Amino acid sequence: MTVSPSPAQAAPDLIARFTDLLGPVGVLVDATDTASFCTDWRDLYHGRALAVLRPANTAELAAIVRLCNEHDVPMVPQGGNTSMVGGATPDGSGREVVICLTRMNRVRAIDPADLTMEVEAGVTLKAAQDAAREAGFMLPLSISSEGSAQMGGVLATNAGGNNTLRYGNARELTLGVEAVMPDGSVFHGLRRLRKDNTGYALRQLLIGSEGTLGIITTAIIQLHPQPRAIEAALCAVDDADAALKLLGLLRARDPALVQAFEFMSGTGMDLVTSLIAGTTVPLGERAPAYVLVELATPRPDADLREYTEEVLGEALEEGIITDAVIAESEGQRAGLWKLREEHAEAQRRAGASVKNDVSVPVTHVPELIRRATAACAALIPGIRPAPFGHMGDGNIHFNLVQPEGMDPAAFLARSHDIMDTVAGIVKDLDGSFSAEHGVGQLKPYMMPAWRGGAELAAMRHIKAALDPKDLMNPGKVLPPAQPGA
Amino acid sequence: MTVSPSPAQAAPDLIARFTDLLGPVGVLVDATDTASFCTDWRDLYHGRALAVLRPANTAELAAIVRLCNEHDVPMVPQGGNTSMVGGATPDGSGREVVICLTRMNRVRAIDPADLTMEVEAGVTLKAAQDAAREAGFMLPLSISSEGSAQMGGVLATNAGGNNTLRYGNARELTLGVEAVMPDGSVFHGLRRLRKDNTGYALRQLLIGSEGTLGIITTAIIQLHPQPRAIEAALCAVDDADAALKLLGLLRARDPALVQAFEFMSGTGMDLVTSLIAGTTVPLGERAPAYVLVELATPRPDADLREYTEEVLGEALEEGIITDAVIAESEGQRAGLWKLREEHAEAQRRAGASVKNDVSVPVTHVPELIRRATAACAALIPGIRPAPFGHMGDGNIHFNLVQPEGMDPAAFLARSHDIMDTVAGIVKDLDGSFSAEHGVGQLKPYMMPAWRGGAELAAMRHIKAALDPKDLMNPGKVLPPAQPGA
Repeated sequence: MTVSPSPAQAAPDLIARFTDLLGPVGVLVDATDTASFCTDWRDLYHGRALAVLRPANTAELAAIVRLCNEHDVPMVPQGGNTSMVGGATPDGSGREVVICLTRMNRVRAIDPADLTMEVEAGVTLKAAQDAAREAGFMLPLSISSEGSAQMGGVLATNAGGNNTLRYGNARELTLGVEAVMPDGSVFHGLRRLRKDNTGYALRQLLIGSEGTLGIITTAIIQLHPQPRAIEAALCAVDDADAALKLLGLLRARDPALVQAFEFMSGTGMDLVTSLIAGTTVPLGERAPAYVLVELATPRPDADLREYTEEVLGEALEEGIITDAVIAESEGQRAGLWKLREEHAEAQRRAGASVKNDVSVPVTHVPELIRRATAACAALIPGIRPAPFGHMGDGNIHFNLVQPEGMDPAAFLARSHDIMDTVAGIVKDLDGSFSAEHGVGQLKPYMMPAWRGGAELAAMRHIKAALDPKDLMNPGKVLPPAQPGA
Repeated sequence: MTVSPSPAQAAPDLIARFTDLLGPVGVLVDATDTASFCTDWRDLYHGRALAVLRPANTAELAAIVRLCNEHDVPMVPQGGNTSMVGGATPDGSGREVVICLTRMNRVRAIDPADLTMEVEAGVTLKAAQDAAREAGFMLPLSISSEGSAQMGGVLATNAGGNNTLRYGNARELTLGVEAVMPDGSVFHGLRRLRKDNTGYALRQLLIGSEGTLGIITTAIIQLHPQPRAIEAALCAVDDADAALKLLGLLRARDPALVQAFEFMSGTGMDLVTSLIAGTTVPLGERAPAYVLVELATPRPDADLREYTEEVLGEALEEGIITDAVIAESEGQRAGLWKLREEHAEAQRRAGASVKNDVSVPVTHVPELIRRATAACAALIPGIRPAPFGHMGDGNIHFNLVQPEGMDPAAFLARSHDIMDTVAGIVKDLDGSFSAEHGVGQLKPYMMPAWRGGAELAAMRHIKAALDPKDLMNPGKVLPPAQPGA
């Protein structure tokens, strides 16, 4: 019915063999069916696919990877398709297949004595969290896309989120993985051992490799008991240096209690309260900056409220914070988090903005904010820097909103100047150009300058060793090799 | 003066060039000087070295690695020479150089706000712990060789120890590493970022690779605040199932408090109290098994004593434990730990014994103990299984003492039968043949059966990609390739 020939028409034999392996339900070729798999949700990339393959289990996945390898068909693994950097979108050639893990969506087991969960790649993070909670535990990984993002992608990109400072990234929560390697062989690493020193850490290599070294099919995830007490507090501070002191005070007492430590600028908070209905800052005066602290413990008898009052009282006395409010109810706690979570939306409503998902060593966060604020103001007078985010793990969303009244297009025309300015300071502070979102196809060009020399060379050697035909998510993570390099 | 020609005499030019690079203090060639570097401390391996090279910094190390690479000289990195598996001992060819990191022994910095420490490879674990303590923090990694073991080796072997269940292995405590790669290039990965998703996890690959992929020169280590309260308790239990229930109870309440959870058999405890002077079990009756629990917290106001009494009271009421004693003083706590730490010495005094450093998923520990005990008793009537160790992370030292009165040599002649019997059960329970000690040159032969297929193939590909001449600690970790494989 479609006029332009679909890529699949070019390779009918191959499609027939995929269908033999997966059944009709496992193979999508019609452009109408494949369209949503060929575009990323940020709408940055628009590709085409020879087919979308949907294996139901590891054996089927291994079979199609072997077939692709045999016929030099490039493969793009995809889960919930929530990449921020085009990491799961095929190119425009129509030669690539998208391998969609959505049908492998079982929570296989939860072991309450061992605090572990075995989940397949296609389970959404939200479904995994829910299954853990129903069993009385917590999967302490939370990101804004959790309703759609699937565990395979969560692991392949080493997802982070709000609670990294307490529980680590996806990497630290993963005890074992099973994966199909680029040649279609199966890495049987679905172990749940806390100690196992028997050779190279393949699990670690696969985690964060963004599907370029293999496709994770199943994982063993470390659970935690659910907190029995949670206290959230919003603190007013004079600047990021004071916020850092507050973090030091909390960690010196007990880092195990600090579940979130989110920084917000006064500018960002003003945008939220002026542009988002139903938000107010429940503190006396407007402050130059704020910290949302969340303390939590599974201890049934922890007196966490008293502890929180004590430590914030001490911070007030020492002049580290100038004001603070502790949520008195779940509703109030949600209200404090709303102030933080609406930052992105408020910035959107304020006009054009430029985003930077960067990280630096935690102690350098104040310097990052100070220097990048000054540098951007010098670049574009009236620019509104509104840095916010996971200060407790050094990951700041250094976002900049256009000056009031400026033409948005004129502001966005300066995007690269702004990003380069921020990146230069982040690099000078030994930071990262991609704290959480990975490299995908958006940022490989940054790799030589940031991770060059022996590091990029080793990555290239590993890629060539494990995927000599460059069939596994090609064009992602690593930049094209320079001629002669 | 020596009669047999030293290996160095065969390559005088090379030695001269090493000396140019490192100075005379950096190059040992005389057999008297090199002897201690050519034997492992268990006295299992006796090699020879072309020279022992002692670089003073990363630049010197990189220069000698480049020179070795150029001249096809195999390199054996060595720190405190405390490997249990011959991981740092050269072969008998006299062609290899030992690269000793001892002179790179500075604690470069401690960042109290970020809770991190920057240490060079040659710093002993003990010196690193002491430096952290003096700065008011804790480096929560403790192994029995810590007075000699150096940080480079600790990381290269992903060391574990008593506190893994709370703080993780060396891997989980390491934020960044610098390393010299097999070609002499330097991997500048000395980052201290909690979030950094920019390509493959080279740091993770180097950690645990036992010096076969590169030489770690410096690391950023995560510190913790010192505990302000510690409670140790010895609990009597009927069996390992009961011990597992106790672990579950403690973790469900607050896993962050459980710093150690050590299992001991009644048999093992009998050996300690009968053979080690000054040891007694401070409980009413002899029990079939024991658990040494240590709870700790940095919280100043934690009421940890009351908490410990409560939770052990609950365990008594529920019949999980049959008796318990909480240490009333530092001296009593040391006394409880002595019961645990003297297990190896008591077994030595009881005659010949066979050791197995294995791990299984925590929930399988009771089954491991039950099945391996029965299987070994069937193999050799009267054998005395005395399993003990880190039950909280699934790592059991499944040691077996000879029957009373049996000829030790006759018992040891059955070593391999015993080890194979235990290994077969561990494998059946998805465990590991080397929980903490690594592979070295003692255990590569086990890799094909335990980590074969796609896993070993990927390891070989990675090794060949990063060290194509096989010059970096050859013969360690990976078994020789089979002809045609």
